[in-house]
Amino acid sequence: MRYAYLGPAGTFTEAALLGVAGAREAERVPVSSVPVALAAVRSGEVDAAMVPIENSVEGGVTVTLDAVATGTELRIVREALVPVRFVLVAPPGTALSDVRTVSTHSHAWAQVRGWMEAHLPGAGYVPASSTAAAALALLPGRAGEAPGFDAAVCSPVVVQQHPELEVLAQDIGDNRGAVTRFVLVAPPDAPLPPRTGADRTTLVIPLWEDRAGALMEILEQFATRGVNLSRIESRPTGNYLGEYFFSVDVDGHIHDARVADALVGLRRVCPSTRFLGSYPRADRKPAAVADHHSDGAFRDAQAWVAGLQDLGPRGARPVGEAPPGTA
Amino acid sequence: MRYAYLGPAGTFTEAALLGVAGAREAERVPVSSVPVALAAVRSGEVDAAMVPIENSVEGGVTVTLDAVATGTELRIVREALVPVRFVLVAPPGTALSDVRTVSTHSHAWAQVRGWMEAHLPGAGYVPASSTAAAALALLPGRAGEAPGFDAAVCSPVVVQQHPELEVLAQDIGDNRGAVTRFVLVAPPDAPLPPRTGADRTTLVIPLWEDRAGALMEILEQFATRGVNLSRIESRPTGNYLGEYFFSVDVDGHIHDARVADALVGLRRVCPSTRFLGSYPRADRKPAAVADHHSDGAFRDAQAWVAGLQDLGPRGARPVGEAPPGTA
Amino acid sequence: MRYAYLGPAGTFTEAALLGVAGAREAERVPVSSVPVALAAVRSGEVDAAMVPIENSVEGGVTVTLDAVATGTELRIVREALVPVRFVLVAPPGTALSDVRTVSTHSHAWAQVRGWMEAHLPGAGYVPASSTAAAALALLPGRAGEAPGFDAAVCSPVVVQQHPELEVLAQDIGDNRGAVTRFVLVAPPDAPLPPRTGADRTTLVIPLWEDRAGALMEILEQFATRGVNLSRIESRPTGNYLGEYFFSVDVDGHIHDARVADALVGLRRVCPSTRFLGSYPRADRKPAAVADHHSDGAFRDAQAWVAGLQDLGPRGARPVGEAPPGTA
Amino acid sequence: MRYAYLGPAGTFTEAALLGVAGAREAERVPVSSVPVALAAVRSGEVDAAMVPIENSVEGGVTVTLDAVATGTELRIVREALVPVRFVLVAPPGTALSDVRTVSTHSHAWAQVRGWMEAHLPGAGYVPASSTAAAALALLPGRAGEAPGFDAAVCSPVVVQQHPELEVLAQDIGDNRGAVTRFVLVAPPDAPLPPRTGADRTTLVIPLWEDRAGALMEILEQFATRGVNLSRIESRPTGNYLGEYFFSVDVDGHIHDARVADALVGLRRVCPSTRFLGSYPRADRKPAAVADHHSDGAFRDAQAWVAGLQDLGPRGARPVGEAPPGTA
Repeated sequence: MRYAYLGPAGTFTEAALLGVAGAREAERVPVSSVPVALAAVRSGEVDAAMVPIENSVEGGVTVTLDAVATGTELRIVREALVPVRFVLVAPPGTALSDVRTVSTHSHAWAQVRGWMEAHLPGAGYVPASSTAAAALALLPGRAGEAPGFDAAVCSPVVVQQHPELEVLAQDIGDNRGAVTRFVLVAPPDAPLPPRTGADRTTLVIPLWEDRAGALMEILEQFATRGVNLSRIESRPTGNYLGEYFFSVDVDGHIHDARVADALVGLRRVCPSTRFLGSYPRADRKPAAVADHHSDGAFRDAQAWVAGLQDLGPRGARPVGEAPPGTA
Repeated sequence: MRYAYLGPAGTFTEAALLGVAGAREAERVPVSSVPVALAAVRSGEVDAAMVPIENSVEGGVTVTLDAVATGTELRIVREALVPVRFVLVAPPGTALSDVRTVSTHSHAWAQVRGWMEAHLPGAGYVPASSTAAAALALLPGRAGEAPGFDAAVCSPVVVQQHPELEVLAQDIGDNRGAVTRFVLVAPPDAPLPPRTGADRTTLVIPLWEDRAGALMEILEQFATRGVNLSRIESRPTGNYLGEYFFSVDVDGHIHDARVADALVGLRRVCPSTRFLGSYPRADRKPAAVADHHSDGAFRDAQAWVAGLQDLGPRGARPVGEAPPGTA
Repeated sequence: MRYAYLGPAGTFTEAALLGVAGAREAERVPVSSVPVALAAVRSGEVDAAMVPIENSVEGGVTVTLDAVATGTELRIVREALVPVRFVLVAPPGTALSDVRTVSTHSHAWAQVRGWMEAHLPGAGYVPASSTAAAALALLPGRAGEAPGFDAAVCSPVVVQQHPELEVLAQDIGDNRGAVTRFVLVAPPDAPLPPRTGADRTTLVIPLWEDRAGALMEILEQFATRGVNLSRIESRPTGNYLGEYFFSVDVDGHIHDARVADALVGLRRVCPSTRFLGSYPRADRKPAAVADHHSDGAFRDAQAWVAGLQDLGPRGARPVGEAPPGTA
Repeated sequence: MRYAYLGPAGTFTEAALLGVAGAREAERVPVSSVPVALAAVRSGEVDAAMVPIENSVEGGVTVTLDAVATGTELRIVREALVPVRFVLVAPPGTALSDVRTVSTHSHAWAQVRGWMEAHLPGAGYVPASSTAAAALALLPGRAGEAPGFDAAVCSPVVVQQHPELEVLAQDIGDNRGAVTRFVLVAPPDAPLPPRTGADRTTLVIPLWEDRAGALMEILEQFATRGVNLSRIESRPTGNYLGEYFFSVDVDGHIHDARVADALVGLRRVCPSTRFLGSYPRADRKPAAVADHHSDGAFRDAQAWVAGLQDLGPRGARPVGEAPPGTA
């Protein structure tokens, strides 16, 4: 197995990938961006890619949401939750009072702003393409020019891999409960993960009209089947202001009758609805399903209708119908 | 074939029955009430019964709505529309100015009140069990006591059958476009009439809670599938004030995918929903169906979901899933 | 005060009227029909009329529902609940075994059918214009022709007023909990009964389209304000099959903010909505109202919006707006 | 007047600000981030701040959406639309074939990726804090260290201000119709811009439950009043995954009756709803309003209800009510 992930080594994404059974022994290919990771899946260069999809503080990872919504279809086959903890690192011998400029990814910077204002109020910010890239640039003995900044904000994973970095402060995120959700993305012919009772299904639903009514029509497809939404994000299609698609997670698996039935309804009212996969929830929280939305309720109701339909004409002449040739 | 109908001969119900192909040659059994007619169907004494279900002026015929909603199941297999025209009849030699008292069924009386106030303002009313019964009591040479009234309001059919009656006035209904809808009711194993594209389906739906929300949940099952309601009537269950069931006609046949799907949804949220039949509309008006509610749209959407479900595990190990024995 | 009621003396309607404070001392005018009673209110001949509006077994009293829905506006100012108990009466000296024919109003006949089948299986039925009229025709010494039947089904009130009648059986209704609701109807300038916290509001709402969607739009006006429906009945407008209006009772008073707001919404989407009155419930059951539908919630939200609106221009030039003459 | 804007000079944000009447003559304060700009408004340091809120390609500007949704209230008083055109600039004398590395803001980079792959396929990317900052670093004679990259992607405004920059390519955005919407944000006591008939209202609505039903309840408040949504974005509250608020733009002004009424409803069901302002649309496109959602329809319906309420008790004793002391 070959897995792509948003690199370099030491990112939160690699931490997510290492939680996948067998990934430590598999080939792991760091790539520079989510589109590159997904392109590698689409081309067959790798078997799957681990990419971030949402963060409890920053929200949806729009580059991922957009990349899976368009182009060749893909399937999410697994999710992972990684707590987001930040450390401040510097070259050996640096003291906190020496730090004038700090580099990291802009999302990480947004999540440590409170700590920075309290402890390094005057520090300048230098953008980086990833948290790990910022930290790695500080490694002693690294070839090339000076990094242009004094310290970096990164994941503790980098320090495990590079103990020579000086850790100036631990756990500096403003929100201690912050967590990022990652998804493992495979080609569309990947086997569907089996239903566990605690599953999630991810969908892409274009909004065909800029009206409250159109969005309500989508939501009704879920509500009338008792399907709960655990995430809904609107994204522009890129064509013009006010044209959206929705990226949605619902509780349940496409093998759950209520989810399958909602998908049939959605696909009818919005034929470009895209299915991105059903897979077990990382938190193993089972879906709450009312009796009348259960598989049993669907089975019974479908059997009732099928039984009624079967009374249909099989040669017998219906009551009160003219015999042939008399009408 | 044996047909029961609300008698005696000469009622509007008999007129409806005579429009059924073959009914003129069949055995026609006049009965005294709708419950008696339906009991004859349930006992197997007759093959089907013609009964009134709604009138454009008076509304639903509650005795019929209630009788088909409870007890052994029945099936509506055909409908008939009969224009409601009234004539005023009397024994031979009677003049309009002679009339002091008039008899007819109370529903008919309600529909000629305007004419009566204009032409016979002081006339007394004597209730009768049917329009035809009132008229037949006036026949000359009829044995027994005097009828106790001078004239009767009835259907023109009576005059065809008994030309000796004097017609004092024609077409005396206040509403010239008045029409009554009748249904032919058969046992539940009657063959389902074939779909024609201009069909009606009749349902009984108990309301499980006295809330706007519960009724909306029922209506949503139709609305999300584009199923139009052509009649909705609330009826008390008879248990206590505020407990209702709904008697509903929808456009379409149970062999239409959108109707079948709505029935599955209804049966789930309200397991005591009762199906009273799918049958051709008497006015042959085809249902208007949007593309995304057509059979094709359902077929395509169901095939799409089934295709996605088929990727489910058949021995293959899903991507990122631990091999057996490693978890 | 003069009150009209559906007579003659001894009807259930008179029993309802006698429960109104002061009615025993007032002038009570028995009339022959609901339309006549309401015409007397409209003409000013009486101050109010007591008429039946629904029965727990038979459903809405359609003649009342239709008569208040059209013509000059009227106001319901009070309701009364009367348990429906039936007795079988006959001339003095009659035994049950002597009874061959029974007369009563057709609604009463429908409610004693079970008892009749059990105790007088072969008895013929003679329609009457009211239960009391049937019973009074049996009074000994009454002038005129023989009544044409042996016994009558009526209210126990008749027996109180005419103890000379023989009571052959008591409490013969098939449904022991049966109850009829009556309403006291006054002219439209009648004072609005004060809010008690346990009130009912009655409305007439024409359905402007034969679609599930139109009915849902009506119901949403109630549902979004947390207004509960305690009765909903569809009635034909009389114009053609499939054209309806709804007669609706909701919990609450027009002085409740949630009811007033729902009425504003209804009147907008359906300008021919008719208000038939707010009045105390006879059962004094208070309405259940969620916090966010309470008067306080409306007052707070309206104050919030009004405060925001008040920032509107009063001479000040808005930020970023061109000074006069520069655009 | 003092205006803050996302600097440095030459950004698209400055272009938006320069379109405001009087802004060319006013004091314009470039700041380093949206939070800094809004803090300057909140502290009173500036009168208003111009910040980006959404882009037709990239979607909502999350830092702005989040910053206006929390903290002291603010008001949007104006919007501006700026077409997004990108140029590739370099120090004088540079040829396209010399370019190995390109710097710009990450959002801009996302929007020129197609052009880059076609014309500079191997070029490395260096993140910058703004498009203008990247370009300015290339200015000849600028003090300090080398910029670390060969070219920059920026707005044509920079070139107008710094004609010494070499323009290597014009209009290199992948989406030629791309546009960014900016809003001018003022303190909450800023006068409300007058209604023009082509207005927008911006709201922040917390979702109190992770259910399709809760979102539908919000949307119904708009739908039942015919208020159209032109933008809806979900944002995490930052507390935990699955907790959202919605940032919404609706067509209309708080002085439009339908918008005011929807706000009353929203505020009831969701008391922490936040109003961010009503202001003229930059595209001057008037709202389409059905008759029954017009100000006139609201006025008529409210007058009708108020008239009915006024019949309430003013000393008169309601019909059928016991006189004092008799109950």
